[in-house]
Amino acid sequence: MRWWGWGDEGHPIALPDAAVALLRAEIGFDPATRRPPVAIDDVRLPEPRLPAGARDGLAGAVGTEHVRDDRDARLAHAAGRSYPDLVRLRSGDASSAPDVVVLPGSAAEVAATLAACARERVAVVPFGGGTSVVGGVDPVREGFGGVVSLDLGRLDRVVAVDRTSLTATLEAGLLGPDAERRLAAEGLTLGHHPQSFEYSTVGGWVATRSAGQASTGYGRIDELVEGLRLVAPAGELGTRALPASAAGPDLRELIVGSEGVLGVICEVTLRVRPLPAARRYEGWSFRSFAAGCEAFRVMEQADASPDVARLSDEQETRLGVAMAAGGNAGIRLARSYLRARGHERGCIAIAGFDGSADDVERRRARSAALLRAGGGLALGRRPGDAWRRTRYEGPYLRDELLDQGVMVDTLETATSWSNLGPLYRAVGDALRAALDERGTPAFVLCHVSHLYRSGASLYFTFFARQQDDALGQWEAAKTAASEAIVAAGGTITHHHAVGRDHARWMTAEVGELGLALIRAAKERLDPAGIMNPGKLLP
Amino acid sequence: MRWWGWGDEGHPIALPDAAVALLRAEIGFDPATRRPPVAIDDVRLPEPRLPAGARDGLAGAVGTEHVRDDRDARLAHAAGRSYPDLVRLRSGDASSAPDVVVLPGSAAEVAATLAACARERVAVVPFGGGTSVVGGVDPVREGFGGVVSLDLGRLDRVVAVDRTSLTATLEAGLLGPDAERRLAAEGLTLGHHPQSFEYSTVGGWVATRSAGQASTGYGRIDELVEGLRLVAPAGELGTRALPASAAGPDLRELIVGSEGVLGVICEVTLRVRPLPAARRYEGWSFRSFAAGCEAFRVMEQADASPDVARLSDEQETRLGVAMAAGGNAGIRLARSYLRARGHERGCIAIAGFDGSADDVERRRARSAALLRAGGGLALGRRPGDAWRRTRYEGPYLRDELLDQGVMVDTLETATSWSNLGPLYRAVGDALRAALDERGTPAFVLCHVSHLYRSGASLYFTFFARQQDDALGQWEAAKTAASEAIVAAGGTITHHHAVGRDHARWMTAEVGELGLALIRAAKERLDPAGIMNPGKLLP
Repeated sequence: MRWWGWGDEGHPIALPDAAVALLRAEIGFDPATRRPPVAIDDVRLPEPRLPAGARDGLAGAVGTEHVRDDRDARLAHAAGRSYPDLVRLRSGDASSAPDVVVLPGSAAEVAATLAACARERVAVVPFGGGTSVVGGVDPVREGFGGVVSLDLGRLDRVVAVDRTSLTATLEAGLLGPDAERRLAAEGLTLGHHPQSFEYSTVGGWVATRSAGQASTGYGRIDELVEGLRLVAPAGELGTRALPASAAGPDLRELIVGSEGVLGVICEVTLRVRPLPAARRYEGWSFRSFAAGCEAFRVMEQADASPDVARLSDEQETRLGVAMAAGGNAGIRLARSYLRARGHERGCIAIAGFDGSADDVERRRARSAALLRAGGGLALGRRPGDAWRRTRYEGPYLRDELLDQGVMVDTLETATSWSNLGPLYRAVGDALRAALDERGTPAFVLCHVSHLYRSGASLYFTFFARQQDDALGQWEAAKTAASEAIVAAGGTITHHHAVGRDHARWMTAEVGELGLALIRAAKERLDPAGIMNPGKLLP
Repeated sequence: MRWWGWGDEGHPIALPDAAVALLRAEIGFDPATRRPPVAIDDVRLPEPRLPAGARDGLAGAVGTEHVRDDRDARLAHAAGRSYPDLVRLRSGDASSAPDVVVLPGSAAEVAATLAACARERVAVVPFGGGTSVVGGVDPVREGFGGVVSLDLGRLDRVVAVDRTSLTATLEAGLLGPDAERRLAAEGLTLGHHPQSFEYSTVGGWVATRSAGQASTGYGRIDELVEGLRLVAPAGELGTRALPASAAGPDLRELIVGSEGVLGVICEVTLRVRPLPAARRYEGWSFRSFAAGCEAFRVMEQADASPDVARLSDEQETRLGVAMAAGGNAGIRLARSYLRARGHERGCIAIAGFDGSADDVERRRARSAALLRAGGGLALGRRPGDAWRRTRYEGPYLRDELLDQGVMVDTLETATSWSNLGPLYRAVGDALRAALDERGTPAFVLCHVSHLYRSGASLYFTFFARQQDDALGQWEAAKTAASEAIVAAGGTITHHHAVGRDHARWMTAEVGELGLALIRAAKERLDPAGIMNPGKLLP
């Protein structure tokens, strides 16, 4: 991963002129003024500082070769991939770099590392793929003798596969593509595809209560966890892999989403599925976002949803069309088709099905009938296939926009169907008002991408001309949106997790007593308080 | 509810001669020797004892008329409805009766009651329908100045219904039939039908992580909880009603299944469905339990399960046929039909569908094709309708068998599909061996009644001639079965909950550190330790 952004150097980035022109008209930036990242040699890292005995303790825990404090390793673990993370890194600020990166090779080595750190009062930041967009892997040193980034990359084994029960036990450090490749060799798939899929890990998904692009069909990660193994400073907690139980509170659900503050998730047993033999992803158009939401609600409540169900609002649709428009005759044709049917200001949706050929056809027919009854216009496979092809591109494009001096960030929430419209308007209005006030008008997009019988997620992307005080500008927008979410009855995060950036709103989310419960669990599992300080809890 | 058993006096109980004959052949009891319960006037209750200030405190909390220490009220709250509970009650032993029964009318009155009890160190046992079969509502006085049974029957309001989002907020004390009647008036249903449905409450279902007979389709109660409100001695914990969130650990899942040891669940927002316009419940036959399990697994993993999916083993099928056989020509005809097809020692299954007429037909067709491919023989609607008609009869029949000197109890577990056969054999063997050893041979039945992609539940019923030391005999059988469950990788309870009877096995279930986490939550929410002592935690 590039130290200042997403993906590797060779990845081509396409930002068509039509898209640039649209953004320019909306937010008024000057694409000619490039703001590239500083050269790597100009990045400022603090000297590593660890208590005297800590390095030996860590070397004893994992072996000298797996304790790294070289500049490259520390820079690679200095931050996640949030907008403020990237703003800081690109400016050469890696002051948050950990003192040392430790790579354990087993759960026992994780336990030994935690013991060494607890002895020396060194903070531990579990690090999976490092893709957090909420500050979840930021090393926090305040009050500690040092900070270790605990990279789980060597925990990359497939521990067991049960083809009869359709479960697989995976180590936490497996990256998305590796996990899927290993499962595919057994004819299986997990089907969990967050936008970060290429660089995020199984353990990271579980620790952050992740949802994937196909989670409407495959289920959120919390619905896929059959059992897990947590190594905490106070010992090991293993929940038995069970389909269901009535034996008290579900402790799995206390560990899922614990974001490294309770311990390190080392191993997870997940519910998997047969590798689909067929896929069919199609585009739909609705006259309005509200009409599309209503059609999605009816479809979901009839148990007829696709695996991937996404609906862009009017603004996201406009940008999507511009992104695809680079002289594409198909797009021009589609636009005139839509215009003729009164959909010229409409919204694009994607409905994607995975499964056996029969299942895909059967499910698609039911879903399509309901979408059509809800005013949907079928656009065929081309938009669906295009979405699938480009579904991991967002973070690459963000890098390109940052180069061009554009602030771009995303945030997400969920609420009941009856509250979806009010929440949608409240968040968009808050973002636009906050950025207008700074003299940098915002362009705000939204999509629905995860459907539940009782409600849905809303995922916002917002753009504005980047100010010199880029972090202050972002903070103002983020605060306004988060306050609006909480006031309008949404959850502060649907799948990005809490990290540092949302911690302030956890009181509104779970109440004082709810926080006290999480703290009580932390005190029991991590009595020295070394685990991922500053995250999750305000 | 009868003080010594289930249901009301008027309920007719039918135990056909054929069933009595079968049981007699298997376990050798003498149906002529009746062992009726003692007369109500002979029941022994201790004098109520409460600390001096407690009664005034309670009257201040809920009003004098809602503080009852008359004999009837105390006897009605002296025990749940487990086999040992009934053995004790029928013998006239109500020594466990609470000192007082308190009936709060609101969450605020619940809070005031808890405050009064914490002040005087009086234990509080939340009481919904009182149907626990694991000792979950047994008043425990040891170490306390007294014990209050907190009856939630007055919390019986429908707080809100959101027809768009398909959620309903119900107070905890609503009984099953009342909840369904109130929802039906809105065109909705929760579809949660444990065998105790007629006498159990919404709050009880949530506190015990209940599953209903149709939970394969409608989902377990934990899957239906959108949000809840807990009143604990330390304050109130409300989880926001949300379809999904990534904001840290899911605290809902800490409260669901907390069995009154953390506080009192006063209100629950549940996911509901439209009232089904059609139902179709059918019988199937399989040549063996193993063949039926495999067909169910394939069906479930193809997302083709009915709402009710039950498969009786060979023994349960034999008893079921005997129960239905009272001179029924249809049954005789069915048996010759089955014999002709090599199913004479087969297993009966029930597949039941609820929904719109179209949905029922469509889903049934897929399910039936898979069951047929798995060796199933369709038996038509008669067995399905008969099952539906008699589905709450189990506890009534238990009373009749107790009168006849038969020990009868049920226990349940769940495991992965690949472990289902070994667990089934281990539990049956353990029960038979333990009861053989006491010279009272056992007749053990089992069914699968809840399907998950990764596994299923097993529900055992066992019979033996009751010994004079009825409790010692039961204890031996229960211990043997529970040890077998834990050793063979099952969960100690799939839907009966933990209560007192399973608490011993919680260490095996969640580990020392898991228990420590539950205790940490309890210390935070119930610092005086007054909530439902002796339950859940060993």
